[in-house]
Amino acid sequence: MLNQRKIFLHDRIGFVEYLGHLGDDLTVVNSARVSFGKTSEKLTEKDKRLIKYLYEHKHWTPFSHVLFQFRIKMPFFVARQWFRHQIGLSRNEISRRYVKEEPDFFVPDYFRVNADNIKQGSLDEKNVKNDYFVAKLIEQYKASLELYNEMLQNNIPAEQARVVLPMGAYTEFIESASLAAYMRIYTLRVSKDAQKETSQYIKAIFEFIGEYCPVSFGLIK
Amino acid sequence: MLNQRKIFLHDRIGFVEYLGHLGDDLTVVNSARVSFGKTSEKLTEKDKRLIKYLYEHKHWTPFSHVLFQFRIKMPFFVARQWFRHQIGLSRNEISRRYVKEEPDFFVPDYFRVNADNIKQGSLDEKNVKNDYFVAKLIEQYKASLELYNEMLQNNIPAEQARVVLPMGAYTEFIESASLAAYMRIYTLRVSKDAQKETSQYIKAIFEFIGEYCPVSFGLIK
Amino acid sequence: MLNQRKIFLHDRIGFVEYLGHLGDDLTVVNSARVSFGKTSEKLTEKDKRLIKYLYEHKHWTPFSHVLFQFRIKMPFFVARQWFRHQIGLSRNEISRRYVKEEPDFFVPDYFRVNADNIKQGSLDEKNVKNDYFVAKLIEQYKASLELYNEMLQNNIPAEQARVVLPMGAYTEFIESASLAAYMRIYTLRVSKDAQKETSQYIKAIFEFIGEYCPVSFGLIK
Amino acid sequence: MLNQRKIFLHDRIGFVEYLGHLGDDLTVVNSARVSFGKTSEKLTEKDKRLIKYLYEHKHWTPFSHVLFQFRIKMPFFVARQWFRHQIGLSRNEISRRYVKEEPDFFVPDYFRVNADNIKQGSLDEKNVKNDYFVAKLIEQYKASLELYNEMLQNNIPAEQARVVLPMGAYTEFIESASLAAYMRIYTLRVSKDAQKETSQYIKAIFEFIGEYCPVSFGLIK
Repeated sequence: MLNQRKIFLHDRIGFVEYLGHLGDDLTVVNSARVSFGKTSEKLTEKDKRLIKYLYEHKHWTPFSHVLFQFRIKMPFFVARQWFRHQIGLSRNEISRRYVKEEPDFFVPDYFRVNADNIKQGSLDEKNVKNDYFVAKLIEQYKASLELYNEMLQNNIPAEQARVVLPMGAYTEFIESASLAAYMRIYTLRVSKDAQKETSQYIKAIFEFIGEYCPVSFGLIK
Repeated sequence: MLNQRKIFLHDRIGFVEYLGHLGDDLTVVNSARVSFGKTSEKLTEKDKRLIKYLYEHKHWTPFSHVLFQFRIKMPFFVARQWFRHQIGLSRNEISRRYVKEEPDFFVPDYFRVNADNIKQGSLDEKNVKNDYFVAKLIEQYKASLELYNEMLQNNIPAEQARVVLPMGAYTEFIESASLAAYMRIYTLRVSKDAQKETSQYIKAIFEFIGEYCPVSFGLIK
Repeated sequence: MLNQRKIFLHDRIGFVEYLGHLGDDLTVVNSARVSFGKTSEKLTEKDKRLIKYLYEHKHWTPFSHVLFQFRIKMPFFVARQWFRHQIGLSRNEISRRYVKEEPDFFVPDYFRVNADNIKQGSLDEKNVKNDYFVAKLIEQYKASLELYNEMLQNNIPAEQARVVLPMGAYTEFIESASLAAYMRIYTLRVSKDAQKETSQYIKAIFEFIGEYCPVSFGLIK
Repeated sequence: MLNQRKIFLHDRIGFVEYLGHLGDDLTVVNSARVSFGKTSEKLTEKDKRLIKYLYEHKHWTPFSHVLFQFRIKMPFFVARQWFRHQIGLSRNEISRRYVKEEPDFFVPDYFRVNADNIKQGSLDEKNVKNDYFVAKLIEQYKASLELYNEMLQNNIPAEQARVVLPMGAYTEFIESASLAAYMRIYTLRVSKDAQKETSQYIKAIFEFIGEYCPVSFGLIK
């Protein structure tokens, strides 16, 4: 059981905050059983096997009746991937056109190195470089923000000034989505060649889902 | 406040049963306010005016974060209209291929008369005719059901035998949908030229919505 | 190459009529290649392997840029299954509220027998029963239509009179959909336990798709 | 009639390129008429009035059978608004993870000034500032690109290096969408408070639509 209702990610600026949910594993079972005109009151072993069967045979609709709501803060470059997922999701996002607060910026813990380019002994080299590039990135972020602020002070509208903001700037939104939708995102965004920064968000979401839908959660792990 | 959790319709066979919901009027407000980076704890008069503004300017996304779940029993000819509405709705339906119970049939309280064909003094005539046609309809339903049962007894699969079932036969399904989705259905299905049998279903749904979202409910009336 | 532009089905009343299309196998390739900033002018062997790769790895979006348009006539009980498929499809359907012509009715070539109930020597029995049930079905259709017509003549509106029409009555609609959407329908509706009457429609659609997208067509067979 | 098949926008780097279409004004008419079981061969004055009626009464489905395909190059900050529109649109986008070419950057012709902050005589002031900010923006773009390139040369993967790229960087994608979808975008993105950079894209798209659907085009102007 999670005590906290907010999971912070990577640089502890990004987060997934649980706002509410509707339904659980039993909802999946009863939505599937409606085809047969049946209802369960309590989750049985047979029901658990049904959930497994539905998942393995890609019968997604019963999973679309369990609904979750989150407040999410993620960098733009992650949001661009995230927002491609559309079916069964609703979103309302913060707008740079209306918000006066300065944006936050994403700083990676460390920069990865392309697997096929790693040479023997490059590990230390990488670590040295990491400090160098993190410093350069922060410097670049600062320069962007300074120009952005200077534009605003000169009455250039935020909608136009934002061209200078980097893809590493944070955005924030409320998202309501079905378990089925999150299962699809999980499948696509936690594969070997998926971007790690994106994987962390869907994994955080499933931490919350796991509390209410342990059987469904057990399947995707 | 409704005491019953199930609203029966027309012939008291069809129904809308409330199963659960997520969010309320405040959810609409906070989903809209995320654009401005703000949150309300309690619904103020200003919040109510915001809901009105959003509704009148057709900003639907804030209404898409309030979610309802119902079990609905309706005749096929209504379901065909209902299932055209797809955005923001999930459904799992009973299947004639798996269910052994005999279907129920819809009998109208009275048959309407085309407005442009009503002649002076035809009202009594109509009532006489109504008894006649209701009797004929029931007779026809019975004949359909008898042939359907005879087919099943002769091992014809239900998927094929159902060709003989009338559009007045009932179906049943679980539906999860957003307030935004139901507002769209309401707008289209409670107009002057909408079919009465369909209007009754969306009105019953809004009886439940009205309990949790009185401000939003007040707008669509 | 098909000479006819209309494929008639089962009882030769139902049909799939080709109305137009946009794109072909090369469109799939170029839509996928946009990720890499590349374009092909002519389909190469390498392109064909790419289509196979996309299909096998369920990368559906490149297939969503090839679009087809059909006029389809199918019985209600098939349409109810067909209309569950929603993503990437647009439909406009004939309305019993506005159309004066009498509906057509679907008569199966033969009634199937539940596999697990077939007894030795029942084959002849089945054929005798088939004639019997086809005759009974047609009789029942006629009785429905007579009552329907009698209602209309007495100024009962068509929207209400249709409760008496059977699920075997035909409907007609125009459908525009992507290759991706039809591939999904094919996968679900041409499996061992799918209903034959529905399978025939998606197979007919792929007869037309095969003309313009032979490589994609080759994959689903 | 357009001679060119590509419309360049603002800084002449962004563009909308026509790739193909399916259907025209007559398709709208025939899709609507299917409800009545009727078909037109040639667009009559009555048909034109029907299109107007459908548009004014928001009967969108007949407009969803006319389909267009474009290759579009737009800056990220415009793409973020554009990609919110999801219904009836398919997209495949270039990926910074796979493409080696350096990105292009959007430079506005001039920066706007918030209407409510314009003081008397500020016009000249604005023009001076404009040159200043355009120069600063280009400088900032260059610094971003240099750091981005340096990261790539040090084997940091593109998926991570892109955090430094500005929202003014260009992306490119293929989009297939219905006339109904573009009408919705037009309505929302060509209003008084819509962002000009986004309006220009939907206007360019309607230049092409106007060639094939002059009647529908006439309605949205």
